Amino acid sequence: MNDETPARRPRRGGGRNARVALRSAPLEDAARPVRAGLSGGKYRALTDAEVLRIHEAALTLLEEVGMALAPDSGVALMTAYGAIYSEEDKRLRYPREVVERALKQAQKQVTLFARDPKHDLDLSGTRVHYGTAGAAVHLADAEIGEYPESTLADLYNAAKITDQLDNVHFFQRCMVARDVLDNREMDLNTLYACVSGTSKHIGTSFTEPAFAADGLEMLHIIAGGEDAWRARPFVLNTNCFVVPPMKFATESCEVMEVCVRGGMPVLLLSAGMAGATAPAPLAAVIAQAVAECLAGLVYVQAIKPGAPAVMGTWPFVVDLRTGAMSSGSAEQALLSAACAQMGQFYDLPTGAPGGMSDAKFPDAQSGAEHAMASTMAGLAGLNMVYEAAGMYSSLLGFSLEGLILDDDVLGQCMRCVRGIEVTEDNLNLDLIKSVCLDGPGHYLGADQTLGMMQTEYFYPQHSDRMSPKEWDEKNRPQLLQKAIDRKHDILSKPGWSRLSPEIDAAVRARFNIHLNEI
Amino acid sequence: MNDETPARRPRRGGGRNARVALRSAPLEDAARPVRAGLSGGKYRALTDAEVLRIHEAALTLLEEVGMALAPDSGVALMTAYGAIYSEEDKRLRYPREVVERALKQAQKQVTLFARDPKHDLDLSGTRVHYGTAGAAVHLADAEIGEYPESTLADLYNAAKITDQLDNVHFFQRCMVARDVLDNREMDLNTLYACVSGTSKHIGTSFTEPAFAADGLEMLHIIAGGEDAWRARPFVLNTNCFVVPPMKFATESCEVMEVCVRGGMPVLLLSAGMAGATAPAPLAAVIAQAVAECLAGLVYVQAIKPGAPAVMGTWPFVVDLRTGAMSSGSAEQALLSAACAQMGQFYDLPTGAPGGMSDAKFPDAQSGAEHAMASTMAGLAGLNMVYEAAGMYSSLLGFSLEGLILDDDVLGQCMRCVRGIEVTEDNLNLDLIKSVCLDGPGHYLGADQTLGMMQTEYFYPQHSDRMSPKEWDEKNRPQLLQKAIDRKHDILSKPGWSRLSPEIDAAVRARFNIHLNEI
Repeated sequence: MNDETPARRPRRGGGRNARVALRSAPLEDAARPVRAGLSGGKYRALTDAEVLRIHEAALTLLEEVGMALAPDSGVALMTAYGAIYSEEDKRLRYPREVVERALKQAQKQVTLFARDPKHDLDLSGTRVHYGTAGAAVHLADAEIGEYPESTLADLYNAAKITDQLDNVHFFQRCMVARDVLDNREMDLNTLYACVSGTSKHIGTSFTEPAFAADGLEMLHIIAGGEDAWRARPFVLNTNCFVVPPMKFATESCEVMEVCVRGGMPVLLLSAGMAGATAPAPLAAVIAQAVAECLAGLVYVQAIKPGAPAVMGTWPFVVDLRTGAMSSGSAEQALLSAACAQMGQFYDLPTGAPGGMSDAKFPDAQSGAEHAMASTMAGLAGLNMVYEAAGMYSSLLGFSLEGLILDDDVLGQCMRCVRGIEVTEDNLNLDLIKSVCLDGPGHYLGADQTLGMMQTEYFYPQHSDRMSPKEWDEKNRPQLLQKAIDRKHDILSKPGWSRLSPEIDAAVRARFNIHLNEI
Repeated sequence: MNDETPARRPRRGGGRNARVALRSAPLEDAARPVRAGLSGGKYRALTDAEVLRIHEAALTLLEEVGMALAPDSGVALMTAYGAIYSEEDKRLRYPREVVERALKQAQKQVTLFARDPKHDLDLSGTRVHYGTAGAAVHLADAEIGEYPESTLADLYNAAKITDQLDNVHFFQRCMVARDVLDNREMDLNTLYACVSGTSKHIGTSFTEPAFAADGLEMLHIIAGGEDAWRARPFVLNTNCFVVPPMKFATESCEVMEVCVRGGMPVLLLSAGMAGATAPAPLAAVIAQAVAECLAGLVYVQAIKPGAPAVMGTWPFVVDLRTGAMSSGSAEQALLSAACAQMGQFYDLPTGAPGGMSDAKFPDAQSGAEHAMASTMAGLAGLNMVYEAAGMYSSLLGFSLEGLILDDDVLGQCMRCVRGIEVTEDNLNLDLIKSVCLDGPGHYLGADQTLGMMQTEYFYPQHSDRMSPKEWDEKNRPQLLQKAIDRKHDILSKPGWSRLSPEIDAAVRARFNIHLNEI
């Protein structure tokens, strides 16, 4: 055999049974190799000077270009806060001291609550959380290889599955319930499907201000009253408050006002398209997105100082040859990583997309696109990595099988976020000396090895690590089939609902819930 | 439609034809969005203090543990250089000043040559190059879904394909020619297959010192004489000079001596297995690998001061539950990224693996594993990212289709390495002002957009960015089939050989070449 070939399998010492036994014991949460909220930040897409330069550009844009199309209520709120309204071009402009005041007043240490407190998300610093997002209009059903219209039941199933996944830390509404035709009922059933499907933190949106008010009413019922809701608001309003470039989305802003007043955290989502509704150079895309989100931040502070808001610098990439979105592109991954850094500069909680694919179903393309962006977002320390699981076809399709497969990859991403601990214990030179000079010449049975196999290494659930021979002998298990099987396993669990029968009945008494049995 | 849904396709302005026309024009190399040797380093897996701590640990290991099993020639060379040989335990130990002298004498600005100078690799700083590697014993033939034994023709085909790929920058022997049974003939035919298949930089290995001498003779013929070879050595000896922990591989060291004297650069490859032949904690894995490679560096400097050598800190990860290699793991990606940083600390050219998969064929697992590691290695500024294309089944299988698909992903990785240029031109606030205040409200037809569509954005060749509807109308093209088609397209090109008929005849007159027609 050639001298470059590494020995494939280390000799199996007598310790193998001990290792397998140890591995099968459940781990305390704190000892697990990965968990939500590990701190990233070791990848810096921008230098400090570049961050400052983009910040200055954003301030200039807010001072000189400003924002059009604010609703009257917003104009009143923001001019009272110090913004300047021009009757001539109907734009609000923001002197830099106004932006700086909003930055100072904004809540920095934001916790996004979950109904189950163990799923609360601490968005401080460079803590990383992965979750779903999107408004896919199709289920990318990899089991049958088709793209049916997405339904309320699909959304509920996505919530159920997310509830069971270790590395998908929050659930933002990811599919549009196209079988609920009335917009009000769609919004409320969407909220219901999310909240009844998972006790993790939820994100959703509302089409009209009145629907947001209805949504708050439902949440009061679920929380056990308005005070209980306001103490631990477990749903965030994902709000596309801006239509880039530099225009408010009038009605979404009105939704935002209702949500902020109702104690609901908001994600200030600016979704420019590089080269279309945002400039072509990546640096300018970020500057425009930051400017827009800072305008949103002023808006929120003008409604209620200190109200929790997440910076949603969320630019997308377009394939400029064809106009098609390229959500799985390298440029997309760069944008989101850089946006994380801008948020860190402001010490504000930040969310951006990271992990979408343009592929239709799970394949090598989707795997690569997902992993590249999710890894980079995590290493950059993005607090909320949205669209990080299950998102296919440039946001048009959501795949339950993809969600399950992506969970495994997100565990690996989080292991990368955690990084390498260079400690005296870990460097233990005495062990190396003893192994080399007196010992067996390998580390297989060492106490340190046995002690670290569960804490230092992340073991994915579905990845195939068999030799070709073993794989063949086991009838060539396919990755997608494993995901399909797990999907059915989770979805077949009876008595799922995360709402008590009493609360469920109260919600159903007040609202027309389209999900029949849950 | 829900307010979070971004408009999928921007309105197509009249500039679309212009954009398509512009896009179809070929680009100058310098204007392309990515190219070999872009500088990484924005991801720092280790802090400076941690790098120093690992360096100190490595020096301690070299002083106190040292290396066993050096050949007599190596003992003589290294003791003459200042290492201390113990007759008692037959180990060479290295006082730190010996290591420091080797570090000082080592060649820092290494260029690895290619027969076509446009493929030369400048390994200075944090410049990144992706390439193949490995000693797979199977062809992972994704076209037929089987794992036949790999042959010389397979290796030659891999070289041919690599020659045609934009983002695979060098070709290291990736498969064992199992149909050439004699070891000498296997080594020489391997060399021949690589060099005749591509004019990019080559890496290979030799089983015995005499075979290396034969290889050099072949290379002299190909280069047009020994002087021409020594002026631009275009083949590197990948040398597993160490059997971790802390033992020399005696015969490989003898091969190395021949290669160094023959003017061939060497890759000092230390392939420990974390938890088996290296410690379990990642930090200690790196420390041991660095120590071993520094011993190799002393060895090379003792043979010939200033001889070019690449630090091959190349630790692998084992699934400690089963003993199976987990080459696609997060821990593997972390190890290689951190090793890049250690090499940068020494200002030495560095290579490590990044992009292997444990999957059997291209699928979502392989895509994710490949992208995660290749991205992190690139962002870390690893000079030579080995195993970065086509490597499946934990190094046991090499896939030609995977090689082609990985090339596309490596282009995206390199786009991430290039990063975001924050320049005055790119931030062009006047354009944003004009678009928002006077202009069309979008950037689609802007000169800046047209000018940057080819330079700012990388367009993969095979990725699918169609809408589900368009994809369905086009009969649902499959990624793997695109790779299979391209493989046949490249392999069917006639008159390929990168050797002239005269040189080919001279090589064949001297050596028993098993490849018949090329």
